[in-house]
Amino acid sequence: MTNRIRLADLAQQAGVSTATVSRVLNGKDTVAPSTRKAVLTALDLLGYERPERLRQRPSRLIGMIVPELTNPIFPIFAQNLESTMAGAGYTPLLCTQTAGGITEDSYVQMLVDQHAAGIIFVSGLHADTQASADRYQRLEELGIPYVTLNGNRPDVAAPDFSPNDAAAIAQGVRHLGSLGHTHVGLAMGPDRFIPSQQKTLGFSEAMENLYPGEPAPIVNTLYTVEGGQSAAAQLIDMGCTAILCGSDIMALGAIRYFESSGLSVPEDISIIGYDDSPLMAFTNPPLTTFRQPVRSMCEAALSTISGLIDGSGTSPRSLTFQSELIVRKSTGPCPK
Amino acid sequence: MTNRIRLADLAQQAGVSTATVSRVLNGKDTVAPSTRKAVLTALDLLGYERPERLRQRPSRLIGMIVPELTNPIFPIFAQNLESTMAGAGYTPLLCTQTAGGITEDSYVQMLVDQHAAGIIFVSGLHADTQASADRYQRLEELGIPYVTLNGNRPDVAAPDFSPNDAAAIAQGVRHLGSLGHTHVGLAMGPDRFIPSQQKTLGFSEAMENLYPGEPAPIVNTLYTVEGGQSAAAQLIDMGCTAILCGSDIMALGAIRYFESSGLSVPEDISIIGYDDSPLMAFTNPPLTTFRQPVRSMCEAALSTISGLIDGSGTSPRSLTFQSELIVRKSTGPCPK
Repeated sequence: MTNRIRLADLAQQAGVSTATVSRVLNGKDTVAPSTRKAVLTALDLLGYERPERLRQRPSRLIGMIVPELTNPIFPIFAQNLESTMAGAGYTPLLCTQTAGGITEDSYVQMLVDQHAAGIIFVSGLHADTQASADRYQRLEELGIPYVTLNGNRPDVAAPDFSPNDAAAIAQGVRHLGSLGHTHVGLAMGPDRFIPSQQKTLGFSEAMENLYPGEPAPIVNTLYTVEGGQSAAAQLIDMGCTAILCGSDIMALGAIRYFESSGLSVPEDISIIGYDDSPLMAFTNPPLTTFRQPVRSMCEAALSTISGLIDGSGTSPRSLTFQSELIVRKSTGPCPK
Repeated sequence: MTNRIRLADLAQQAGVSTATVSRVLNGKDTVAPSTRKAVLTALDLLGYERPERLRQRPSRLIGMIVPELTNPIFPIFAQNLESTMAGAGYTPLLCTQTAGGITEDSYVQMLVDQHAAGIIFVSGLHADTQASADRYQRLEELGIPYVTLNGNRPDVAAPDFSPNDAAAIAQGVRHLGSLGHTHVGLAMGPDRFIPSQQKTLGFSEAMENLYPGEPAPIVNTLYTVEGGQSAAAQLIDMGCTAILCGSDIMALGAIRYFESSGLSVPEDISIIGYDDSPLMAFTNPPLTTFRQPVRSMCEAALSTISGLIDGSGTSPRSLTFQSELIVRKSTGPCPK
């Protein structure tokens, strides 16, 4: 295949000379790693097959367990973990769940059997205050390093990498306040998850600070389109002119509800999502939302578990990240 | 747990000696499989938790290799394959790629190393007419069953499960024709992929049938938002009033281009996507697109590979599925 690759195309895509491309393709050691990666990326992006000598043996396995792929934020976590791992010389084993499908525990057993070097849990049972923490205790007994993303319970001892959900929601309350909205509601998934509790805390505190003694309505439904629809219907009946949602998918459900009720977003009611999952810039209206710093969270998680695997890390600890408010067109001034 | 199990009870229930029970609980190899099973059954019947080393091994592994998760159609394939596999008693190993990350070949090697029972390839190199088919030959030599989704080359011998892309695009041309559009363009990814070739074929034939001798412009870019933008810019310059796109993501790119150029979709130009990936009903405007029958394709693929793994299948063969045209709001009458 190699002889059919156009060096000039690759060089242009990678921003290097054709001579450099040629050196990389021929497996020469005289190229900087970052340059080599740029050429390989160009090769992949332009859809060429990598020459035989550039293929690598699979390296150590790290399992990543994500809840499901229908909420578009989880594929993005998986994708970022995958590319971060590949860059660090690990091979990811991605385990996704569906209702009635394979459980987190079955996947953990499979990963143990396949000699995974470590496990990264994304939004798993570690964040569910009603689940048991025994399963994590077991991993510690087996000596398998693991870390968690998006909130863990106090009795799960692993390093956790999460956004500061409370601070983000508080910022959302203030942003809506600056647009004149004082009747703000919170549409949230089930309250037993740590991120739900954090967002609720941030909301209640910010509302109490800004509007002491005023109502701060919260509706807990599900983290789905239908959950968002249902919560929106209840919150508008309580007199809200703006709604903060626990996820982008809920926000899309809220927008769909108002659209079908003859209300306009943002003219009649403002909506803010959470996650900034892909394509939110393409929704109608483009969604104002909080962007989870997925890339940074994944890099920190991998760096930490990598240290745990190699025994080379300094004492690992949890880190908190800032979600950014991305203002698009689903928020506007409070109607008179 | 083991020391709290009463060996005598187990021995009586299983109809074996306590020494045999002890050997089974300690994982010794000197016990006949039927005896081992009797002891495990007794353990379950008497309500004891199985000792760690005796817990049921996860079921057979099937690898699924998908291109990447940023195009939202691929998480949906992964999700459907996962739930179909779980229902059939298999455990999926999901392998996702990123540009510059782990290649299809590295994943195959990993899956071989992990003793996967079979591999399902989604939109992989099997669909790339410029890649080598040697890798698939190797799987046959190793006796590892595999099937492909979304188009394979004539020299890849595996059963393939794909939509009839040519028929779908031809239907798109006719649908646009019924709205008065005679200047229709095709925005497509690289032409070396089988699905691209099939869509191009369907387009050219349908255009020639409806408008003999008239131009049927085709632009090949990339299957990305940016690829869609670039193709849209070229096709509008060629006088098109409607554009069929190779994927939903390209269609979103085309819409973005026209929006930024001051043109309205569908008032000034009509756009049709391909895939009906999630959230396309929420885009601005909601996207008219073809829905790939993902669930049916995944079920057929699993059923076939399952037959190949067990040796119980009738002679496996490829199947073609129909994509459905989902009419939303990105298509409208041709402007005068």
